[in-house]
Amino acid sequence: MAKVDAQFTDHVAETVAALTSSGVLLVSVGEDGKPNIMTIGWGTIGVIWGKPIFVVLVRPSRHTFRLLNQTNEFTVNVPYPDLKEACDVCGSESGRDIDKFAKCNLTPAAGNKVKVPIVQECGIHYECRVVHKNNVAPVELEPGIMGEYYPTEDFHTVYYGEIVACYADEDLRQRM
Amino acid sequence: MAKVDAQFTDHVAETVAALTSSGVLLVSVGEDGKPNIMTIGWGTIGVIWGKPIFVVLVRPSRHTFRLLNQTNEFTVNVPYPDLKEACDVCGSESGRDIDKFAKCNLTPAAGNKVKVPIVQECGIHYECRVVHKNNVAPVELEPGIMGEYYPTEDFHTVYYGEIVACYADEDLRQRM
Repeated sequence: MAKVDAQFTDHVAETVAALTSSGVLLVSVGEDGKPNIMTIGWGTIGVIWGKPIFVVLVRPSRHTFRLLNQTNEFTVNVPYPDLKEACDVCGSESGRDIDKFAKCNLTPAAGNKVKVPIVQECGIHYECRVVHKNNVAPVELEPGIMGEYYPTEDFHTVYYGEIVACYADEDLRQRM
Repeated sequence: MAKVDAQFTDHVAETVAALTSSGVLLVSVGEDGKPNIMTIGWGTIGVIWGKPIFVVLVRPSRHTFRLLNQTNEFTVNVPYPDLKEACDVCGSESGRDIDKFAKCNLTPAAGNKVKVPIVQECGIHYECRVVHKNNVAPVELEPGIMGEYYPTEDFHTVYYGEIVACYADEDLRQRM
């Protein structure tokens, strides 16, 4: 199916909805060229510094963290409902141990503007270049969040990705 | 016009589109109970820590900055196109000098879950409680952004607001 260029604003509804259900697929690649997929249920989308921005959070313990810091680029891929099982695998196994593209029968297709691949089988794609990053800061964090998510102080790094390309399947509306 | 409860995911498309055009209205209130409106064109929406989150950025030099830090709550209000002039005023004048609700003929209506009012004349409303904040960090910022937006190092504080209520005008679709 052909992918057609979109404004980053065109598919925010489906993208945020996917974050709250199956999750979306965050792809990064290391200096060695090996891509990795991580399912994320957290992220925000909008505008900062006059640029379209996709914000994602990754813990230092994740394989993705090392890759993101090597190449400073990522793609976000919004799956169709039939990829639920792949989302579960990509959210529970580590790219240190397995090739998640191979294990889930997913296809890494070349990005247009970044060297990170997209997940071909997904419906919506955002290619992003990191323009800022920062850490979740314990001092200004609600105590309930601190207790629930950071008992070992493994604070997320917040990556601000400028969306440099956005596109989607031509028949997205029929399939999503 | 009646306001009807919504899922935070229901109106993200219109909300992000408004960020890229007229802007949206950020309302805060001080300990003295006086609310203030600031037009923002930057912000992101999504999910973090399993919660619906609206992220806004405010510079320390702004009147809104002081108010936000006093009460840790804000509302985001998405205007109709006919509020363009009010958006311009609320984006260029300071609440230190004028009452922007009065000047723009806008009505502060009580929030449901926060003590910050909404802007009654807007179409979509998010009530938010700050659960985390952090500063834009110069060390991890793209040089182009640093030069364009921070020549005086007046770095934004990034406020992560948990969306505790979301609602919209019943006839939103006809008017937006």
